[in-house]
Amino acid sequence: MKKKIIIDTDPGIDDAMAILFAHFAADIELVGLTTVFGNVSVEQATINACYLSDLMGGNIPVAAGSDHPLNRKNDRYPDWVHGKNGLGDITLNTPQTKALETDAVDFIIEQVLQNPGEITLVPIGPLTNIARALEKAPEIASKVKGVVLMGGAATVNGNVNPAAEANMLSDPLAADRIFTADWPVTMVGLDVTHQIIMDEMYLKRVHQSGTNIGNFITKISQFYLEFHRSTGTDGLYTHDPSTIAYLIKPDIFTIESGTIRVCTEGITAGLTIMNRSRKPYQQTAWDGIPKSDVCIDVDVDAFLDLYASIMTGH
Amino acid sequence: MKKKIIIDTDPGIDDAMAILFAHFAADIELVGLTTVFGNVSVEQATINACYLSDLMGGNIPVAAGSDHPLNRKNDRYPDWVHGKNGLGDITLNTPQTKALETDAVDFIIEQVLQNPGEITLVPIGPLTNIARALEKAPEIASKVKGVVLMGGAATVNGNVNPAAEANMLSDPLAADRIFTADWPVTMVGLDVTHQIIMDEMYLKRVHQSGTNIGNFITKISQFYLEFHRSTGTDGLYTHDPSTIAYLIKPDIFTIESGTIRVCTEGITAGLTIMNRSRKPYQQTAWDGIPKSDVCIDVDVDAFLDLYASIMTGH
Repeated sequence: MKKKIIIDTDPGIDDAMAILFAHFAADIELVGLTTVFGNVSVEQATINACYLSDLMGGNIPVAAGSDHPLNRKNDRYPDWVHGKNGLGDITLNTPQTKALETDAVDFIIEQVLQNPGEITLVPIGPLTNIARALEKAPEIASKVKGVVLMGGAATVNGNVNPAAEANMLSDPLAADRIFTADWPVTMVGLDVTHQIIMDEMYLKRVHQSGTNIGNFITKISQFYLEFHRSTGTDGLYTHDPSTIAYLIKPDIFTIESGTIRVCTEGITAGLTIMNRSRKPYQQTAWDGIPKSDVCIDVDVDAFLDLYASIMTGH
Repeated sequence: MKKKIIIDTDPGIDDAMAILFAHFAADIELVGLTTVFGNVSVEQATINACYLSDLMGGNIPVAAGSDHPLNRKNDRYPDWVHGKNGLGDITLNTPQTKALETDAVDFIIEQVLQNPGEITLVPIGPLTNIARALEKAPEIASKVKGVVLMGGAATVNGNVNPAAEANMLSDPLAADRIFTADWPVTMVGLDVTHQIIMDEMYLKRVHQSGTNIGNFITKISQFYLEFHRSTGTDGLYTHDPSTIAYLIKPDIFTIESGTIRVCTEGITAGLTIMNRSRKPYQQTAWDGIPKSDVCIDVDVDAFLDLYASIMTGH
């Protein structure tokens, strides 16, 4: 039986790569895309998700979601990373796919309740939609198969500042609610995604098929490659596709289990602090919450082989 | 020439061990003890410092300092760690040494200005006195030899909760001011002090001399050993003496250099976040502050040999 997933996303170049990776993975059934502000506005994220649905044949539902974090207005979008349109500023035709009337939060709740124990939520943007779904229908916690999210940093510095990874910083309060809720969470964060670098030669080799999707990824990844080069990395960090690799082949990741809280205020807002201590504490804010599975290491070669084999083998 | 140091302290069992270690170190001149709330009230810390001065011959000046953190009232004292009197609840005679009329903050300022380039401040409690001295006389920043502090955790969890080490949590705002000021700071934190465990046999061997000081350390360390045993550690963590070992023999420590900020609010208050990233960030709160030297590893055997040799070799 295929793994049913909903990708909650703010595409985003690596978001697009993750979605198309999931599309080609034989073991995965992409139930829908829900959109959120983050790399771009939610309006642009929804256009991009519809465009990606077109690329995948037009059958993947898209539901539009939150345009700002739970408890504040939105900041600027990082257009220097993903381009103004989120997809490397390539020209995009108006998509044929239209977003559902249903809102992202309701779509998530409906799908989880209609498929008890089957849906894995895969948030690869800010966690606002997921936190809102959990608030509106707390019963989904016991009805999801799991939550596999891209975000956070347990053992390394953040990527926006030394404390914070971008998805966490975009809505720290929502993130803290995800990690403290009673459901199975797997965190795929910078601990592993900063290890996996796709260089230009690898990207060319994998996406040289001449198909629409191959050409599309080749085009959008140029902008992302140039951003990475400007920061001294010759290749691109493979953030969001790492969640899909985890779903397909979890054994290429090293997992450590621990409770996580997210700092919601001050200069370290967005920081994920995992309790890795073997010593007991007196009362702390990490007490009484379920442990998350945290990817702290990855077999990079196995990852690159897996992505290449799925993207070229369909 | 001996290294002139002022130990700012809240004795505290490991504080007492650090002070007596410094006393016996041939290379160190202990210019004075300044006291601060922390393990006990500042009143008790001052009594204990005077008692320690007595033990060392009565010539070490003691100046009483802050009784609460910079911007809030004090919390409870950790009497389950150090005992109600801070020295393992052993019976203490009323000390002969009397605290100076001069306050700790003024004593620090006077000594630094009178000995330009010579004094190393060694705070092994909350950083309140040091922050107040820096605020009252900012010129001391360029006049100290350095600041070698016990506190923080750059690569490991805290000891009060997963985020915070005790000295940092006791006054996070003061700590942040120490790390962001323009003076040379060395952080000796849990990254190394949780590696150095003195077990009962080692303590007995080192302190079996039958001298007053040997007997004293043997007696006070019982309480501390029992606390550690209650948390599953068969021996005591050697927090505060690590600063003295660093001053005597820095090459047994592995140093990494980086900017540090301290989280001052929320559930991660007291967290020390060090920028270890090799990648540049856009604007962050870590910009424009000097790097600190952070002890991230230690040669444990060399440490234990050093402490034993100095404590038995006088």
